[in-house]
Amino acid sequence: MSSRRYDGRTTTFSPEGRLYQVEYAMEAISHAGTVIGILAKDGVVLAAEKKVTGKLFEQDKSSEKIYVLGDNILGGFAGVTSDANTLVNYARNTVQNVLLSYDDDIPVEHLTQYMCDLKQGYTQYGGLRPFGVSILYGGWDAHHNFQLYHSDPSGNYSGWKATCIGSNNGTATSLLKQDYKEGCTTQEAMSLACKVLSKTMDSTALDSEKIEFAHLTLSPRTGKPQPRIFTAQDIDRLLEREGLAKPKDPELEEAAPTAAAAGAGPAVSGSRGGEGMNVD
Amino acid sequence: MSSRRYDGRTTTFSPEGRLYQVEYAMEAISHAGTVIGILAKDGVVLAAEKKVTGKLFEQDKSSEKIYVLGDNILGGFAGVTSDANTLVNYARNTVQNVLLSYDDDIPVEHLTQYMCDLKQGYTQYGGLRPFGVSILYGGWDAHHNFQLYHSDPSGNYSGWKATCIGSNNGTATSLLKQDYKEGCTTQEAMSLACKVLSKTMDSTALDSEKIEFAHLTLSPRTGKPQPRIFTAQDIDRLLEREGLAKPKDPELEEAAPTAAAAGAGPAVSGSRGGEGMNVD
Amino acid sequence: MSSRRYDGRTTTFSPEGRLYQVEYAMEAISHAGTVIGILAKDGVVLAAEKKVTGKLFEQDKSSEKIYVLGDNILGGFAGVTSDANTLVNYARNTVQNVLLSYDDDIPVEHLTQYMCDLKQGYTQYGGLRPFGVSILYGGWDAHHNFQLYHSDPSGNYSGWKATCIGSNNGTATSLLKQDYKEGCTTQEAMSLACKVLSKTMDSTALDSEKIEFAHLTLSPRTGKPQPRIFTAQDIDRLLEREGLAKPKDPELEEAAPTAAAAGAGPAVSGSRGGEGMNVD
Amino acid sequence: MSSRRYDGRTTTFSPEGRLYQVEYAMEAISHAGTVIGILAKDGVVLAAEKKVTGKLFEQDKSSEKIYVLGDNILGGFAGVTSDANTLVNYARNTVQNVLLSYDDDIPVEHLTQYMCDLKQGYTQYGGLRPFGVSILYGGWDAHHNFQLYHSDPSGNYSGWKATCIGSNNGTATSLLKQDYKEGCTTQEAMSLACKVLSKTMDSTALDSEKIEFAHLTLSPRTGKPQPRIFTAQDIDRLLEREGLAKPKDPELEEAAPTAAAAGAGPAVSGSRGGEGMNVD
Amino acid sequence: MSSRRYDGRTTTFSPEGRLYQVEYAMEAISHAGTVIGILAKDGVVLAAEKKVTGKLFEQDKSSEKIYVLGDNILGGFAGVTSDANTLVNYARNTVQNVLLSYDDDIPVEHLTQYMCDLKQGYTQYGGLRPFGVSILYGGWDAHHNFQLYHSDPSGNYSGWKATCIGSNNGTATSLLKQDYKEGCTTQEAMSLACKVLSKTMDSTALDSEKIEFAHLTLSPRTGKPQPRIFTAQDIDRLLEREGLAKPKDPELEEAAPTAAAAGAGPAVSGSRGGEGMNVD
Amino acid sequence: MSSRRYDGRTTTFSPEGRLYQVEYAMEAISHAGTVIGILAKDGVVLAAEKKVTGKLFEQDKSSEKIYVLGDNILGGFAGVTSDANTLVNYARNTVQNVLLSYDDDIPVEHLTQYMCDLKQGYTQYGGLRPFGVSILYGGWDAHHNFQLYHSDPSGNYSGWKATCIGSNNGTATSLLKQDYKEGCTTQEAMSLACKVLSKTMDSTALDSEKIEFAHLTLSPRTGKPQPRIFTAQDIDRLLEREGLAKPKDPELEEAAPTAAAAGAGPAVSGSRGGEGMNVD
Amino acid sequence: MSSRRYDGRTTTFSPEGRLYQVEYAMEAISHAGTVIGILAKDGVVLAAEKKVTGKLFEQDKSSEKIYVLGDNILGGFAGVTSDANTLVNYARNTVQNVLLSYDDDIPVEHLTQYMCDLKQGYTQYGGLRPFGVSILYGGWDAHHNFQLYHSDPSGNYSGWKATCIGSNNGTATSLLKQDYKEGCTTQEAMSLACKVLSKTMDSTALDSEKIEFAHLTLSPRTGKPQPRIFTAQDIDRLLEREGLAKPKDPELEEAAPTAAAAGAGPAVSGSRGGEGMNVD
Repeated sequence: MSSRRYDGRTTTFSPEGRLYQVEYAMEAISHAGTVIGILAKDGVVLAAEKKVTGKLFEQDKSSEKIYVLGDNILGGFAGVTSDANTLVNYARNTVQNVLLSYDDDIPVEHLTQYMCDLKQGYTQYGGLRPFGVSILYGGWDAHHNFQLYHSDPSGNYSGWKATCIGSNNGTATSLLKQDYKEGCTTQEAMSLACKVLSKTMDSTALDSEKIEFAHLTLSPRTGKPQPRIFTAQDIDRLLEREGLAKPKDPELEEAAPTAAAAGAGPAVSGSRGGEGMNVD
Repeated sequence: MSSRRYDGRTTTFSPEGRLYQVEYAMEAISHAGTVIGILAKDGVVLAAEKKVTGKLFEQDKSSEKIYVLGDNILGGFAGVTSDANTLVNYARNTVQNVLLSYDDDIPVEHLTQYMCDLKQGYTQYGGLRPFGVSILYGGWDAHHNFQLYHSDPSGNYSGWKATCIGSNNGTATSLLKQDYKEGCTTQEAMSLACKVLSKTMDSTALDSEKIEFAHLTLSPRTGKPQPRIFTAQDIDRLLEREGLAKPKDPELEEAAPTAAAAGAGPAVSGSRGGEGMNVD
Repeated sequence: MSSRRYDGRTTTFSPEGRLYQVEYAMEAISHAGTVIGILAKDGVVLAAEKKVTGKLFEQDKSSEKIYVLGDNILGGFAGVTSDANTLVNYARNTVQNVLLSYDDDIPVEHLTQYMCDLKQGYTQYGGLRPFGVSILYGGWDAHHNFQLYHSDPSGNYSGWKATCIGSNNGTATSLLKQDYKEGCTTQEAMSLACKVLSKTMDSTALDSEKIEFAHLTLSPRTGKPQPRIFTAQDIDRLLEREGLAKPKDPELEEAAPTAAAAGAGPAVSGSRGGEGMNVD
Repeated sequence: MSSRRYDGRTTTFSPEGRLYQVEYAMEAISHAGTVIGILAKDGVVLAAEKKVTGKLFEQDKSSEKIYVLGDNILGGFAGVTSDANTLVNYARNTVQNVLLSYDDDIPVEHLTQYMCDLKQGYTQYGGLRPFGVSILYGGWDAHHNFQLYHSDPSGNYSGWKATCIGSNNGTATSLLKQDYKEGCTTQEAMSLACKVLSKTMDSTALDSEKIEFAHLTLSPRTGKPQPRIFTAQDIDRLLEREGLAKPKDPELEEAAPTAAAAGAGPAVSGSRGGEGMNVD
Repeated sequence: MSSRRYDGRTTTFSPEGRLYQVEYAMEAISHAGTVIGILAKDGVVLAAEKKVTGKLFEQDKSSEKIYVLGDNILGGFAGVTSDANTLVNYARNTVQNVLLSYDDDIPVEHLTQYMCDLKQGYTQYGGLRPFGVSILYGGWDAHHNFQLYHSDPSGNYSGWKATCIGSNNGTATSLLKQDYKEGCTTQEAMSLACKVLSKTMDSTALDSEKIEFAHLTLSPRTGKPQPRIFTAQDIDRLLEREGLAKPKDPELEEAAPTAAAAGAGPAVSGSRGGEGMNVD
Repeated sequence: MSSRRYDGRTTTFSPEGRLYQVEYAMEAISHAGTVIGILAKDGVVLAAEKKVTGKLFEQDKSSEKIYVLGDNILGGFAGVTSDANTLVNYARNTVQNVLLSYDDDIPVEHLTQYMCDLKQGYTQYGGLRPFGVSILYGGWDAHHNFQLYHSDPSGNYSGWKATCIGSNNGTATSLLKQDYKEGCTTQEAMSLACKVLSKTMDSTALDSEKIEFAHLTLSPRTGKPQPRIFTAQDIDRLLEREGLAKPKDPELEEAAPTAAAAGAGPAVSGSRGGEGMNVD
Repeated sequence: MSSRRYDGRTTTFSPEGRLYQVEYAMEAISHAGTVIGILAKDGVVLAAEKKVTGKLFEQDKSSEKIYVLGDNILGGFAGVTSDANTLVNYARNTVQNVLLSYDDDIPVEHLTQYMCDLKQGYTQYGGLRPFGVSILYGGWDAHHNFQLYHSDPSGNYSGWKATCIGSNNGTATSLLKQDYKEGCTTQEAMSLACKVLSKTMDSTALDSEKIEFAHLTLSPRTGKPQPRIFTAQDIDRLLEREGLAKPKDPELEEAAPTAAAAGAGPAVSGSRGGEGMNVD
């Protein structure tokens, strides 16, 4: 209780040496939709659970959780959505600046470090709050081939073979540990991602409305990295192939969001007109 | 109760990872008059409920909730009126700057992002408060055709086919979900908007004093987007066509605002001389 | 009671989405002398009740509540007097800058918006307090002819046919609603203003010491807008014509301020040597 | 009691719309020595009560409460002495700047406004406190002839025929109201000032040690305004002429300050070595 | 008690219009060693009591309380020693700047005003504390001949014939009042200073270790002002002449500081290794 | 208890002269993995315990606790990981700047001082928090040969022959004191480091997943310093040679992290998806 | 107790005129190792007690408490070690800047003043804390020959013949007073310093691990000042000569630090891995 005295200010250590504001920012992420990243020998795969869906939602326009940050890097974001949007802008600017200066793609770890320095600063200076966002960076560069990094609100980062962020990351991590095979192909990684998502999401069946999917591979023609965010059709086809597609029953679709809304706390409700802060 | 400790500062996360100031700003919007946006195949429609009316109010001069932001974009605002005015200025400047730099209309999502970056900053830096305003952006650009976006005080945004913000958004959203048909025409969208408004507003009958109406279509002659904010006559004619017009009884008109004033809380009262902050 | 926790800082929303500091600033205005604005077809009329009077007060020198802001705009101010003075300066600078840049009078709504943007900023940034002033802008421009706007401490504004700000604005608004006729002449508007003032002011009879009067009409000769602030003689003649003039009894005059001082709270007492903050 | 919550910060309105810090600053003035200003048809007179006197006090060197601000303006100050000194510097700089720019004396109301804008700013921005000083400006300019203005810590000002600031301003104002005659001469104004001072000051008899005197008239030779601060001899001669001079008894003189010190609270004690803040 | 709420911030007036932080800063001075200033017809004399003495103290090196600020001005300081050092630097810079700009000595009141403006600023802006120092300025300039000014932490100043600051200023002022003769010579002033010091200091006998002495006279040869800080020998000779010298008993000397240390509170203890803040 | 009042702000001394925030920052380090530094006659050895391991963790990519700061300096970091990353960047920039300016390697103590000045500043200025990181600097320069420095969050540093930072530094220091031999070779130092780590770490057996190892020696060919961070293979070979290698049992490996997670408090848990701030 | 209200901010005077934060900073020094300074006729001697020792501590590398600040000045520091390091840098920069500007050594008092101005600023501005360091400056310049100054955290300084700072300064001062002889030689001063240290330190016997020693004399050859910090050998030889050397028993050495650690409070414990802030 009295330890609560140290949580109101970013720039304050608690007597146990903890930075509560950073930990609370991490809490924001634990309500966000899961994002999974898996490293394959010939690519890197990102998959995400969308929390906000509905018939009126414009599906095709804006991917919500997975963004192309540069020609060679994909980013998967979990946490406060508006913070994530700002960080996407920052990342894209960084990528373009390096491209302009060196006429070469930014190394993946380089971008990760840039972003983490920014994030760290927001945990150390007064009058600011940490960014409430964790990020998975999946990318390729000539130095280290395909790579997968994870960064959190404290500005810390680390390299992984397979990891996940967001609401069910405990379950997802266990599944990944169990089933991940080193040297797997991108196809196998995608299968694994689908399997993990299907087990961690609330809904019994997956469809293109509830998940986002992307991978980064080398173009067989040019040998250059090729990021690809899956369209709804792509996702549906993939899910069908994996045997995870939802049976085509429109009634069920209508019912699902209602159930989700009932089960979820206010913080994870969709942005349907100002009912709470959006955390995907 | 103790969770209240985290709500006095924008730059503070609560232990559950929530930003209370942002949520309170959203609360300001829930008292504001409803704004409805509907995407049609050949246009986009915005309709709004005006909270402040009266015989002495200068009707024609200043639309209160729907503004032309650029040649290709309409904006519908709900929340703290003075914050909205400031954001209208900012949006118009952004639109003109892009026009000047690229000699082309700003893409709709582009403007939405610009505005959201601004809003997000006001949730992260100390000594500021979030803008208490949600916005619907209805626009057209060559890349994505007609589009409808919604942004909230956190700086988050998303694309919708039909959505609404403001006081009765729950009811309105249900109605929209039920009756919205994909690929509808602008005429059908306008009918739907009228119907939804008539069911969510307190008054039994609509008239041009209580609502604002606008649509953006392509000019059949030039093929350019054409924003149009309806005049009082236009609205009355529309309502009549829809069978929603108020019977012409001047006594009733006088009585209505009094009733509204009695029923409404102080925060939603009109700006008739400093009785409370204006939230439309 | 606990809701009071949110009222100490401008940059804090309360859980209900209210900005208490802005509402308190509006409260300052509710103690100020009434200012009435009435739009006529051939002019716009401003009339104000002066709270500070007395034999030793230099009548002619400085009007207290109505100012000429530009060749085409009159401003009526109610609230914290020193804040009002600062805003008068700001408005006049704005008017001159526009005149210098465009060699044309500033549009009335333009000035209103400028002033409101300034006011809004003082409600959103830390370390400032809102301006405790409401303003009526009565003006003419070629685009919209005669106009009457009202702005409050939040930075919100709206157009009116007739409105009032200050201490008895409830009563005054009722009277205006009842008696205002659209398309009235400036003369009729002046009569109405006199009538309303005579009913809302504490004193039984009006005279030039207790009220200020101004109108803006088009010069019949040049067709240009002509602001005119009435001298004491003008006002007395007007009141006599309206049958509202005070009987010439010097004893009564001496007694009146004493009575007013006895009846009024400390906040509305005159500036006779530091007895409280001046709010007219 | 709970209303006290709003008095610690300048930038905070109380729920009744009051700015307590400004009112407390005015309280500082109510302990200061009285300053009287009287407007005559051919001049303007300022007279002040000095609170700090004594045998060891260097009489001739620094006038304490009345300063020549420019060739055409006298200023009488009541309140926190060090704040007053700073404002005197500011006023003199303003006067010289205008003189340099326009080669003409600054209009009296102009200077008053300049000073009030400065003062108002100190009531609206965080991290500052209001100036604890009220000022009487007595001046002459070609536009409005002789003028007398009063400004207070809020930055408000007003024109007067006769007024006073400081400790006994209630009594003094009554006396002025009773005896002031419009169109009086400077000589009559000086008599009135002497009379008022003699009735409001604690001491039974006046002498040049306890009061300051100044007037501004037009030079009969050049027609230019001529400020004149009276020397001790001038004052004694004036008092004698008015029949208010103290009988020449050095013992009484020694006793008087002791009595004053005994009667006065700590805040009004002289600056004899750090016993409290100086408020004259 | 509740009035204490207003003493934590410089920029806060208490409800009685007092600035507590300034008054507390003055309290710091009341523990400091006495400094006496006396104006003679042919010079000005400053004398001070040193609080920190002892066998190991390097006597000759740094005078502690009286400094030459310029060729024509001496300064005597009482209060927080480190604040005083900073103000000495500031004063000397000011003197040299004026000398450089005008090739003439700075007028004494001019310097006093400069210093007071600096001090006043530290009482009005947030994030600062007032200087805890009172100063006596003894100087000569061509305009006003010999002068003696006193300034306190509020930034107020006044001219005196004889005054004193520091711990026993009440007693000292009485003595000065009683014995000061106008038009006395510098020699007489020095005798008076010795007499006053001998009666106000705790020690029974004076010697060069416990007091500092300085005067400013006109050089008989050049007619220029000549500041002179007395050496230990000068002081001893002076004291002997006045019959106030301590009998030469080294044992007594050893004992005295111990006694003083026992009697004095912690705030006035010497700087012998971090036992408390130094206030001379 | 009441002493806790002084721990919320960096810029506040407690009455006992302690800076609590700095001490709390040091507490953060006491949960971090141990880093050991040992100075040999022909090199300097750094060894560290990794807290975050697991099958999915990308082993080869990013060393976590030991970094090459320059050609002649190795750095071992314990504490808040994101703070450490920022300091690594700062150190590398400093090293390169010196190299650029002087075309020579930076002296080791020089870099240590630079870093400590930075750290000290974060303990003295408001609105910042101290860096929660202790650092061991092992380096070589021509002036002082091989050197080992330790710096802590206060910005203090000192030179050591052998020291350690992090969770079990008490035990480790005792072991070092007991077994360290002056003039030992790098090989002996490495043996000692292995021995100490094996006794202080929770796991019964060491392997390349749990520890990091690095040394800096002079290249026998060029005579230049040669930093070398051991690969997993290098470490395994070393451990085998020392007889400390883990028996090759994959089951045990799986079990170990689970046990560690169970035993450790939340602050030391790995960065597997936002469960707490990362402190290695 | 209630007086504690004034100790949280540097910029706040307590009602008694005290600055608590400065006094707390001085408290930090009272736990630090003693530093003694003695002025001789042909030199100046500094000696210090080291608190942090141990077998693993790199003795030769970094002196901890006595530094050469310039060719003619030695500095002895007691207090927060990291603050001291920063001040050493500042002092050395100042010395070099003066040397560069004037091609002459900085006068000793000059440097002292520079440092004190810096220190004073940190006691007067918000958002900073005072430096927790007292300094002895022993130096020589052509103007005042050998000199010894003491400065404390308030920014106050004074000249001494012999003084000391740190933990046992009371005892040490008494010893110095008793035994100091004016006009002693450097050799005698060194003997005295040894004697005082041996009586004030906890350990029964001195050796080069526990003390630092330095003197500044004039080079007999060049006549220039020559600072010399004693090596361990020098110190051991000196102690032997004085008969204060520790008997050569390695067991005792091992035991001593343990005993010291047991007896000392946490604030004075060594920097052996983050157990508390370092105060030497």
